[in-house]
Amino acid sequence: MPRYRLLIEYDGTPFVGWQIQGAGRSIQGRIREAVHAISGEWVEVRGAGRTDAGVHALGQVAHFSVGSDRAPYVWREAINAHLRPDPISILDVTAVPSTFDARFSATARHYLYRLCNRRGQPALDKNRVWWVARPLDAQAMADAAGVLVGHHDFTTFRSAACQAKSPVKTLDQFSVETVGCEIHVRASARSFMHNQVRSLVGSLKLVGDGKWGRGDLEAALRACDRARCGPVAPASGLYFVKVDYPAISTDVAPLQPSALDALGTE
Amino acid sequence: MPRYRLLIEYDGTPFVGWQIQGAGRSIQGRIREAVHAISGEWVEVRGAGRTDAGVHALGQVAHFSVGSDRAPYVWREAINAHLRPDPISILDVTAVPSTFDARFSATARHYLYRLCNRRGQPALDKNRVWWVARPLDAQAMADAAGVLVGHHDFTTFRSAACQAKSPVKTLDQFSVETVGCEIHVRASARSFMHNQVRSLVGSLKLVGDGKWGRGDLEAALRACDRARCGPVAPASGLYFVKVDYPAISTDVAPLQPSALDALGTE
Repeated sequence: MPRYRLLIEYDGTPFVGWQIQGAGRSIQGRIREAVHAISGEWVEVRGAGRTDAGVHALGQVAHFSVGSDRAPYVWREAINAHLRPDPISILDVTAVPSTFDARFSATARHYLYRLCNRRGQPALDKNRVWWVARPLDAQAMADAAGVLVGHHDFTTFRSAACQAKSPVKTLDQFSVETVGCEIHVRASARSFMHNQVRSLVGSLKLVGDGKWGRGDLEAALRACDRARCGPVAPASGLYFVKVDYPAISTDVAPLQPSALDALGTE
Repeated sequence: MPRYRLLIEYDGTPFVGWQIQGAGRSIQGRIREAVHAISGEWVEVRGAGRTDAGVHALGQVAHFSVGSDRAPYVWREAINAHLRPDPISILDVTAVPSTFDARFSATARHYLYRLCNRRGQPALDKNRVWWVARPLDAQAMADAAGVLVGHHDFTTFRSAACQAKSPVKTLDQFSVETVGCEIHVRASARSFMHNQVRSLVGSLKLVGDGKWGRGDLEAALRACDRARCGPVAPASGLYFVKVDYPAISTDVAPLQPSALDALGTE
């Protein structure tokens, strides 16, 4: 059965999140409905990461297998036509081997978190940033962020609802950059736990506020205690930017079942 | 009477435009209402440029004079509090001499026009760009844009509703840049006529489409004939970016009445 990989942009604001839930519009559900409208088949649309309500994507990846064989550009145009006017856009469709799995084949996931740090509320970037009116010390945040990079037990920064089997993860990048009046935090890892990026950013913001020092952030990590996490940063500032896969032109080997834990569940 | 200069960001989507009109929400009207709520006075809020419905601003400038003397930051916080949840944000308030006039003291106005040139509709930048699905030749657009720079009669690129006395203007910058899948057009001049930037961009897009060559654009300019203008580009892609003034620390001399023609009326 032909399998297709989708590259997807969306504004998370009006959705209950990526995943189909009892009620409410989900991105996964809208794409599934579009594929059904085109092919008459109810397929499974599997995403690389389950973004929460309000979280955006610049490059979510998903796949589906379907009985009807159409050219990738035909799928792209037809799905997009059915998605409008919802703020979801299929940027690319590629035919992939049946071994490709958007979730289990992923080797890295990249997130961006945008804080807007200025006195005036965001007008053009409403629902696109976390607005923090009080000045933050971006340099202190940049200095402290490094303590989180590496192989750690991230229990402190994991949501109670997280289904990952192990809280031990490797955070490959966690860096802070100032862009105009914004502070951008970039996080990369093979996989993240539920709410992990927002928990990390919420705690790092305490450093920017001067409430925590670098040592406090490190102590919170070492404590492996959810109660030590700072307030979780709002969904509006988070972007699922990119997913890495082994080169698709060669054979794509899905990860082994031991990787079942590799949920991109931020 | 104290006079204050405002630096303003707004999302033009839900407004009838900058200017107060019979019915509908305007940015000027919302700021005027906010100042009234704070001071009890109905002031005149004069902007550097009258943006149309749907046109955005990153740095509109306006001034008002008011009987009550408050610190600039108090005005900024109070006006912003009254503007919420409308997508208008006062980024800065400065006390200025009574000779300062947001419209007549301006020495240059800068606009940005964003085209999103890709197959997928914009999800995150809905109402923020002009979406053009067919590939445009950005290089041809960049090459052709130069014919419009300089001192010309811009009758071809002026709205029928334009109130400027003379169609002769100096376009200081009109340049094209590719940024990812976007094409950015930057336009700078002391002043613009009504719909001028959108008329110029709409015509330049015909060059990108391959329907016009550089010579056609030049011939349209030389014709001084509104009928030769390309379709006016949509408001959603236009941003009023910045206004230049003589250094405000020195004496700000308003332009003379001959400059009444210097309307920033895009």
